[in-house]
Amino acid sequence: MAKKNEEFVAHIAKRADDFPQWYTDLVLKTDMADYSDVKGCMVIKPYGYGVWELIQSEMDRRFKETGHKNAYFPLLIPESLLMKEAEHVEGFAPEVAWVTHGGKEELTERLAIRPTSETIFGSMYSKWIQSYRDLPMLLNQWCNVMRWEKSTRPFLRTSEFLWQEGHTVHATAEEAEEETVKMLNVYREFSENVLAIPVIVGQKSEKEKFAGAKHTYTMEAMMQDGKALQMGTSHNLGQNFAKSYDITFLDKDGVLKYGYTTSWGTSTRMIGGLIMVHGDDRGLVLPPKVAPVQVMILPIAQHKEGVLEKANEIFAELKTAGLRVELDDRENQSAGWKFNECEMKGIPVRLEIGPKDIEKGTVVLVRRDTFEKTFVPMESLATTVSQLLEDIHISLFEQAKQRRDERITSATDFETFKQGVQSGFVKAMWCGDSECEAEIKQKTGATSRCMPFDDEQEHLSDCCVHCGKPAYKMMYFAKAY
Amino acid sequence: MAKKNEEFVAHIAKRADDFPQWYTDLVLKTDMADYSDVKGCMVIKPYGYGVWELIQSEMDRRFKETGHKNAYFPLLIPESLLMKEAEHVEGFAPEVAWVTHGGKEELTERLAIRPTSETIFGSMYSKWIQSYRDLPMLLNQWCNVMRWEKSTRPFLRTSEFLWQEGHTVHATAEEAEEETVKMLNVYREFSENVLAIPVIVGQKSEKEKFAGAKHTYTMEAMMQDGKALQMGTSHNLGQNFAKSYDITFLDKDGVLKYGYTTSWGTSTRMIGGLIMVHGDDRGLVLPPKVAPVQVMILPIAQHKEGVLEKANEIFAELKTAGLRVELDDRENQSAGWKFNECEMKGIPVRLEIGPKDIEKGTVVLVRRDTFEKTFVPMESLATTVSQLLEDIHISLFEQAKQRRDERITSATDFETFKQGVQSGFVKAMWCGDSECEAEIKQKTGATSRCMPFDDEQEHLSDCCVHCGKPAYKMMYFAKAY
Repeated sequence: MAKKNEEFVAHIAKRADDFPQWYTDLVLKTDMADYSDVKGCMVIKPYGYGVWELIQSEMDRRFKETGHKNAYFPLLIPESLLMKEAEHVEGFAPEVAWVTHGGKEELTERLAIRPTSETIFGSMYSKWIQSYRDLPMLLNQWCNVMRWEKSTRPFLRTSEFLWQEGHTVHATAEEAEEETVKMLNVYREFSENVLAIPVIVGQKSEKEKFAGAKHTYTMEAMMQDGKALQMGTSHNLGQNFAKSYDITFLDKDGVLKYGYTTSWGTSTRMIGGLIMVHGDDRGLVLPPKVAPVQVMILPIAQHKEGVLEKANEIFAELKTAGLRVELDDRENQSAGWKFNECEMKGIPVRLEIGPKDIEKGTVVLVRRDTFEKTFVPMESLATTVSQLLEDIHISLFEQAKQRRDERITSATDFETFKQGVQSGFVKAMWCGDSECEAEIKQKTGATSRCMPFDDEQEHLSDCCVHCGKPAYKMMYFAKAY
Repeated sequence: MAKKNEEFVAHIAKRADDFPQWYTDLVLKTDMADYSDVKGCMVIKPYGYGVWELIQSEMDRRFKETGHKNAYFPLLIPESLLMKEAEHVEGFAPEVAWVTHGGKEELTERLAIRPTSETIFGSMYSKWIQSYRDLPMLLNQWCNVMRWEKSTRPFLRTSEFLWQEGHTVHATAEEAEEETVKMLNVYREFSENVLAIPVIVGQKSEKEKFAGAKHTYTMEAMMQDGKALQMGTSHNLGQNFAKSYDITFLDKDGVLKYGYTTSWGTSTRMIGGLIMVHGDDRGLVLPPKVAPVQVMILPIAQHKEGVLEKANEIFAELKTAGLRVELDDRENQSAGWKFNECEMKGIPVRLEIGPKDIEKGTVVLVRRDTFEKTFVPMESLATTVSQLLEDIHISLFEQAKQRRDERITSATDFETFKQGVQSGFVKAMWCGDSECEAEIKQKTGATSRCMPFDDEQEHLSDCCVHCGKPAYKMMYFAKAY
């Protein structure tokens, strides 16, 4: 491991020179993930998986607090079952991996590896739900899914990825809509307060909505190259799936009715997002709440009397306080090398302790985000470090928000629009027509990202920025991952 | 839900009449799992998944404490990669599900859905490991695997199941053996201290060992029908996989050497085990440490003044103390109906509180395992309940151990042996020959379960119980799931 790190410290591309290469360098060279023998599938290495475990733990708590329970549904979906909802099939069939043989026998019916699980949840819900007393049904699952992708990039787009998918059933359209919005808000709050990533939320166009949904809400983040990343979506499925999968219930009034369903998901893609939002030319910058190691203790001149002892004391103190802390006491690496590694890996706080510090009763704290170095007393160190981690979180969020807002422009004419989407998000009035949207994409490479909710809508002009027809709503457009 | 429960309370088969039916009734009617639309695949429902989450959390902590980290490897394995270790292929090929198409295109090489992941870990380890400094490599993953099974039963044997698989690489044979034994001991300690299931540990025969292993250790539990359930295995893979997948490292002495690998796994099968070890004719009996609900509070005459208020107070107190507690204040169900449901669901402690209890300053605690009812003061209730849960755990373990030990017999002649395996485990001397073992299975339906370690070996006679040749070791035999 040592040898590999020494090599790669020198080999990260600069963001300004080659953003995609910078991203790949970070992912591979900080041991977040690696390519596998299976085309389009990655291995999530322990450091990357550590981030995912923290994401899972934070999200799972929020799902449970909002009344959801976890379950596990089968990986494989019979072709006939997948085919029941017409729009859904059309959307997903081109990217499904098919199982055709079990052992030496050919199957009588092909089985799809789940690209998403509305169909199999639907079929079970049909069996489980009889009465209004069974509603709402609020389930979630953490699992792997597969979408056969032609061009892939670790975390951002891989044939297999890990995610959570919530699937709920409600008695009324209003409750389903309320759930859809509630989970979007859970996602937004999580993105801001845990990942330190500001997001724009709103509704997808008809063209960009989930295959089979009535409508889809999304949260969109801006990467440092000005491109959008869809970080999570929440779908109001209306009665589409309830009708295709026969999810009915006997209501209080004695009438048999179709349920209203929703689904919502976020994935390991968010890890790609936090790399591209916070990272810099020296490596990863991990937001403290999902950093597998929040504090790295580096003893300076550790062979000198008392240094390692003090370092271990501090380690114990921070660990007891619930911080994720490690102590790097390897003797075969120089301090400078260890500094580099901490930076590359994006560890939020580096804590240095040497003979002089011990004399003075202080330690050195170095922030990864700003490289700011402070000397702090050893007393109440856990409190000091916790506060610093909180400051780093806030600062990361503010920085990301500022960078994003600087790259959001408005356009009322198509020339300005074209210019704007080269480097960021563009707010523009749009006619609501799918063909117009397709032309915009063809001409500029930008896609519609979302229409903000009413309280964030702005009336920029009366006409569509592209076709000039009467405007329907203000839409964010951007190039996207 | 209410309606369904009312029906099923009356419909659990008795263990003595039809043990397999009793098991299926428990799984389906307590909402642990359900059959799905995919042959051989189950849906793990929230109550069953809640048990799995607690199992995961307890095990994961133990893995991390012993130095392991989690990662995630791909679901799909190219056929050529799977084929590299000859014995491994032979063992697993007959039960592999094959992906042959991605979208509309036929793949140039078939992809196996992982039946286990030694092959893909091996291929990555070959890439990641260069030097002795990279060792030991200690990874684990939580995931789904698939083995195409002809006859399936929820939790016990399904085509898809959830599990954890540890995969490690070591510099020496000794370290690999140490790891193999260490993880077996982690499993045993977990089974006893968390699941309250006593296990017999030892080594598998050549015939029963993992395909490709040097040797396999196992922990075997006895179900209430006297059959064995393999609850977890730990494999010393020697250099077999290292050679097939080219896992080499430059040792301290400058020589390039093959590593020594291990793997070890446990699965959702353990849930089947805890049902069959602890359940009774009234339903599930969940061991407190993996019970999603440890305490159910049932307010009696809840319309009377102060009852619900007090019940809520107690709920808050127990919850704050870290207990998994629920309060059943549904008005449309009778107390008797709620009692039945608590019993069916195997909730360890039922807490009743009514107007008379409030007057006396006491509550009623009812143990699920013994149905023992005690009146306890409201003061320090959390401590009282925690202690009761601990008592229940110990009692469940002791009960299970006693039932098991009563059904373990020794045999030095084949007639006694045949009788013994009808109702339990039989200890017998065995020649060590695979053909003899196969004949025993053919004649009695019993398989070799494990050879205890030396300190538990007994010298029952000089000859194999079946063929009369010189004995190799004492072996446990039993019919098995």
